[in-house]
Amino acid sequence: MNGIDRLVVLLSKLPGIGKKTASRLVYHILDADPAYVKMLAQEISGLPDTIKRCSVCGSFTEIDPCLLCTDEGRDTEVLCVVERPQDVRIIEESHEFNGRFHVLGGLIAPLEGVNPDDIAISRLLGRVRSGAIREVILALNPTIEGDTTALYIQNTLKDTGALITRLASGLPVGGDLEYTDRLTLSRSFRGRFQL
Amino acid sequence: MNGIDRLVVLLSKLPGIGKKTASRLVYHILDADPAYVKMLAQEISGLPDTIKRCSVCGSFTEIDPCLLCTDEGRDTEVLCVVERPQDVRIIEESHEFNGRFHVLGGLIAPLEGVNPDDIAISRLLGRVRSGAIREVILALNPTIEGDTTALYIQNTLKDTGALITRLASGLPVGGDLEYTDRLTLSRSFRGRFQL
Repeated sequence: MNGIDRLVVLLSKLPGIGKKTASRLVYHILDADPAYVKMLAQEISGLPDTIKRCSVCGSFTEIDPCLLCTDEGRDTEVLCVVERPQDVRIIEESHEFNGRFHVLGGLIAPLEGVNPDDIAISRLLGRVRSGAIREVILALNPTIEGDTTALYIQNTLKDTGALITRLASGLPVGGDLEYTDRLTLSRSFRGRFQL
Repeated sequence: MNGIDRLVVLLSKLPGIGKKTASRLVYHILDADPAYVKMLAQEISGLPDTIKRCSVCGSFTEIDPCLLCTDEGRDTEVLCVVERPQDVRIIEESHEFNGRFHVLGGLIAPLEGVNPDDIAISRLLGRVRSGAIREVILALNPTIEGDTTALYIQNTLKDTGALITRLASGLPVGGDLEYTDRLTLSRSFRGRFQL
């Protein structure tokens, strides 16, 4: 196996990259500017060393606590609870939220062996108790695991006095009723609002 | 810009990788086994140094001439002419061909400034003249550039005595007449064969 084949094997382990795509990427890299290739390799190899978990919110960061947790311009009384660090990025890019984050690191899924203790729920309880948290927004996927986790967190936090909310579920903007599944349609009915 | 953002920018320069896919890859790498990440970076950085162009066929190789050009088990009298090194890989994986290859490194495209002198046509003529070449198979894409290049090569090689052939163009196996474009349908008619 030569260098091309070895890199194809390694790249096809990445999500959404099949053998054909990996092969196309390798041939692109072979034709690319050597400076670019060097930089790409450096950034990849440096990633595990430079990026750590924030000890406060659990997101990825270069400095601990992360910039979002130390930014005084953000609302410290609202916590947005997400499943994964990449959800923080997605929400930040939407500019819809200006509070603090809390990354669970997973969702409760008993069938897959993920129990409440395996994700950062007790740490969430600690944060809500110790800080003056007004609202906890659960930005979890509208799936069975997301619903289970939301319910569990709701129960865990019920004596803290914080308002617990969850992101609305319904028709995607630009979507079509015809192509919307029944469950989404049902949720959009339950979540309907007055005009 | 932190390490995550920098790698997203670099990865989204790869073909078929948008910003969202790049971001998903980076978060996957952050969660991946450090040994895998190290190996991935090493193989990428090593690629430009270890992989060279074969001085005979023009394909990518670690040793020059490449294994395909020195394999005595292959038919030395048949040359398969392709546009790019990755075409060699695709044809090799099909196990349909057991001769030698010749990589042009492009197709004639005057509008994009690619002239016959810019691709390895004169070197092809040299190979056909000096070797005992029985047949030259043009495995070029059935596009305007492929057709132009095939015609040019046909003229260039016409006095060499070698048989010049081109891969058949027509309906893809498993395809549907209804979804076949007119040009492909027209070629499949012209290339029809007796049962």
